[in-house]
Amino acid sequence: MNGALEEYLERIAPGDSGAMRAAAERHAQLTKPAGSLGVLEELSVKVAGMTGTYAVPAPAVVAVFAADHGVHAQNVSPWPQEVTAAMLANFAGGGAAVNAFAKNNGVDVRVVDVGVATPVEQLDIVHAKVRPGTRDLSRTDALTEDEAHKAIAVGFDLADQLVKDGYRCLLTGDMGIANTTASAALIATFTGATADAVTGRGTGIDDAALAHKTAVVRDALALHAVPATEPLKALQAYGGLEHAALAGYILGAAANRTPVILDGVIAGAAALVAQAFHPAVVDYCVAGHRSAEPGHAVALKQLGLQPLVDLDLRLGEGTGAVLAYPILTCAVRALAEMATFEDAGITS
Amino acid sequence: MNGALEEYLERIAPGDSGAMRAAAERHAQLTKPAGSLGVLEELSVKVAGMTGTYAVPAPAVVAVFAADHGVHAQNVSPWPQEVTAAMLANFAGGGAAVNAFAKNNGVDVRVVDVGVATPVEQLDIVHAKVRPGTRDLSRTDALTEDEAHKAIAVGFDLADQLVKDGYRCLLTGDMGIANTTASAALIATFTGATADAVTGRGTGIDDAALAHKTAVVRDALALHAVPATEPLKALQAYGGLEHAALAGYILGAAANRTPVILDGVIAGAAALVAQAFHPAVVDYCVAGHRSAEPGHAVALKQLGLQPLVDLDLRLGEGTGAVLAYPILTCAVRALAEMATFEDAGITS
Repeated sequence: MNGALEEYLERIAPGDSGAMRAAAERHAQLTKPAGSLGVLEELSVKVAGMTGTYAVPAPAVVAVFAADHGVHAQNVSPWPQEVTAAMLANFAGGGAAVNAFAKNNGVDVRVVDVGVATPVEQLDIVHAKVRPGTRDLSRTDALTEDEAHKAIAVGFDLADQLVKDGYRCLLTGDMGIANTTASAALIATFTGATADAVTGRGTGIDDAALAHKTAVVRDALALHAVPATEPLKALQAYGGLEHAALAGYILGAAANRTPVILDGVIAGAAALVAQAFHPAVVDYCVAGHRSAEPGHAVALKQLGLQPLVDLDLRLGEGTGAVLAYPILTCAVRALAEMATFEDAGITS
Repeated sequence: MNGALEEYLERIAPGDSGAMRAAAERHAQLTKPAGSLGVLEELSVKVAGMTGTYAVPAPAVVAVFAADHGVHAQNVSPWPQEVTAAMLANFAGGGAAVNAFAKNNGVDVRVVDVGVATPVEQLDIVHAKVRPGTRDLSRTDALTEDEAHKAIAVGFDLADQLVKDGYRCLLTGDMGIANTTASAALIATFTGATADAVTGRGTGIDDAALAHKTAVVRDALALHAVPATEPLKALQAYGGLEHAALAGYILGAAANRTPVILDGVIAGAAALVAQAFHPAVVDYCVAGHRSAEPGHAVALKQLGLQPLVDLDLRLGEGTGAVLAYPILTCAVRALAEMATFEDAGITS
């Protein structure tokens, strides 16, 4: 483990159980039947454990980490690799779904090139390219150890910077043609699930293409055979650069005691990597939604997270996280701002 | 049928199928894999059918209709009836969950006394009391025909006024101790479900109290035996005044071609009443969430609506509708504002 990663992990501590107890006690005094806000009560208590306060986690920002994948050469996606760069231009121009959702919900957007294959220097985004796409995970290691460390640092350092800039809620986003393939391999590694259980149709492929993609994942798992206790080796084996950056970003959110809302299957895979680095990171994670991609439910189960939204989204970009953000702020605002029965003069 | 109700129903027409087709065609051209926004794509198409535009339905307002129930005398709720009025004071003071959620999501709140038993003249709310609580549905008709008409008019006329005031999305809210009992009777009436299938724990009762409440509903259904084709008679038999007002409000939203987001089981029961008055109202309804109350799922199935949020809320007040509002606006904003593949220069 290099020095930077070691320092990152030392900064992470579990959620504050005292703050969580106090929040749960406050909930019992608020003007509503006990438990009537359902999942939102647990959620607000969990956030109190992260931040140690009842402050609504705002403002929020979604960081969209973009990269390409060498395994694209194995025909795992119907989309040409150049679409990654084209979508970055679309994000920068404000034309993508994540832009519409973010504008709607008052969330800022940062787009980060951590490893897009096509040159994108001309775009007004964060330029932090570690290398132009990973190597083909079906044939060799996707990343060197040094590349994996560098990509983790991109995410962690961005989380640090965003919190320094005043953001109080970090959301994950991602873009990368073929990134569900790397996600499937990572999820299988950390959960023990089979390739069949975690490989899905991504942005939309037919049965034959799914069978092929599943075989690619199965063979890659056999080739690399990374144990679940080796998150760095898993990133080296499968990538992607955005998964490594997202793992770093999630670790960085935890180090800053800041809630991080996970988007879909890519974020779920990255969160499993982060969890393998430090189990307490999960105390800072909120599952924005459940993606239609089958590996996502497997990842969420292992993480012990219940998704807030479950509407068959399978787009990525951070759309599910941004969609869930107002649910999180509603939950915290109720805890922070509701009157108690005593305030309201109500006795049951 | 009286003249006002007849005029109301004449103003309602189905959603615009041409606008829906155009919206679906636009979706296919937006910069995302086809169908990748899941339920949100259908939702935005449905809203286009309501309004005939892609305009984001804003601003929004939640109308919280409050009333009391004579059946409270049968010990169907652990809460004293005075809590209805106390909670109205809490709404007016901004201390309830619906206030926190509404502030968070940019939704205005209107509180309407349509039949609270306790005097609430001192509160700064909409005063439209038809009578101080319904009669006991377990012994007699809850409302006269005239009272039912008056309560419907309170909701319909308020919807008209709110649209005139510039609101482009109407949300339902409700408050009334014992109102899940009347809801259960209404849902059973319009769905044919048994009392056991639709009676729940409301704000929280034990097994013995649930068995008693279920028996009250079962006996009331046998006493009144209203057929599913008689919505006015159902309102007379069971009330409540807030259910009648909500049914009018839902009809009013439809008459104004304005989306109405339904909250939980009370709104579900009222929507069944509205649907029985005019089947096209469902074209204007969005199910905000699925309540933990068992009758709600039964009602939603009959209405053919899929809830946007499913987080075990069982509070009422409009909290589930307000929580879902940003999901609806995200869906419509994506349709309205995303770039097309042609705009972005992307070909697959």
